[in-house]
Amino acid sequence: MVKQVRAQVTRDTIVDGAAQVFGRRGYGLASIADIAQAAGVTKGALYFHFPSKDELARAVIDEQHRRTMEAAGAVIAEGRPGLETMVLLSAVLARQLLTDPVVQAGIRLTTDVASLDDPVTGPYRDWLRTAEQLFRQGVDEGDLRADLDAAMLSRVVVASYTGVQLVSETFSHRADLLQRVRELWIVLLPGILASDRSETLGHLLELVR
Amino acid sequence: MVKQVRAQVTRDTIVDGAAQVFGRRGYGLASIADIAQAAGVTKGALYFHFPSKDELARAVIDEQHRRTMEAAGAVIAEGRPGLETMVLLSAVLARQLLTDPVVQAGIRLTTDVASLDDPVTGPYRDWLRTAEQLFRQGVDEGDLRADLDAAMLSRVVVASYTGVQLVSETFSHRADLLQRVRELWIVLLPGILASDRSETLGHLLELVR
Repeated sequence: MVKQVRAQVTRDTIVDGAAQVFGRRGYGLASIADIAQAAGVTKGALYFHFPSKDELARAVIDEQHRRTMEAAGAVIAEGRPGLETMVLLSAVLARQLLTDPVVQAGIRLTTDVASLDDPVTGPYRDWLRTAEQLFRQGVDEGDLRADLDAAMLSRVVVASYTGVQLVSETFSHRADLLQRVRELWIVLLPGILASDRSETLGHLLELVR
Repeated sequence: MVKQVRAQVTRDTIVDGAAQVFGRRGYGLASIADIAQAAGVTKGALYFHFPSKDELARAVIDEQHRRTMEAAGAVIAEGRPGLETMVLLSAVLARQLLTDPVVQAGIRLTTDVASLDDPVTGPYRDWLRTAEQLFRQGVDEGDLRADLDAAMLSRVVVASYTGVQLVSETFSHRADLLQRVRELWIVLLPGILASDRSETLGHLLELVR
């Protein structure tokens, strides 16, 4: 039992170390030796838990996605209207991207299309499903235009958000991330809000700060 | 003179080979040996032209951006209205991404934030400037809402487009790229078109096929 706990602690330490190195260097340039050093474990201990760099990267992505979905679940559980929840989620993920090295590394690895043998699509699919549900709820609640295709809107928003955070990282190391996410909604909302809900725009934008 | 021409031919051959390898493996996993082999030159010849992998990557990005801007320049020179030009440019770049290995590799390297010592921002800046000009023209021509902030709209569109092509690559190796770009405009246009120009939506979407 104690041994199992210790193994889990070592595993978590390695994932944190890997996140540091992947976050800084990307997948291709990260070395196992650097990750072992950042985690403070021997290369032997590292290989015991993660036989390949690919598995290490997937462990970081899994842990990032677990944290992100946990935070998203807490927001969804508040039971706000669908559109308000979606806008709030975009801010919650932005704040995680600003503060949590595991989230920074996981998102970077997810967008690092070429590096992993199979591109990672699971987290995108979860976000697409979540966004589609919330947008559909937004249509039902009369906040969004009745003729909106919620599935299409979720594809556009998830992909656009992916680009917004990537470009923010490129230009400012994410210093302007919340402002850029806010601008995305400033541009999107007027075209998707139901015509009798345009006065909610200001309130929705207040959620992204 | 003949020697200079021959050197340029070798250089171009190397850039093509580098594009193949970078496009397939990303920056981090691409090796100089693979690139020399793909280009059909010796490692010595390769190092003579490009002393580092970083310089090779930047040469691919430069050549991609040159081709993209050349195609964009030809469209702009047709002198269509600003908004129509912008929508058309999004389709022209998509078609280059579908067919030209150098463009595929250059865009992938540009979005590979972590790999290069300095993230590449030049091509983004050129696109931001171009988009801002065209959107401003679109406002002046009465196609876009008079109260639009053209600079903000260009930031949102350039970042969103970056994400759309990245997610399309992840999910379908870009097979659905034109459809995804079309969806981006389907979502964006209703919120940015001037209210008396909403009937132009169908015509604009016809440009992205």
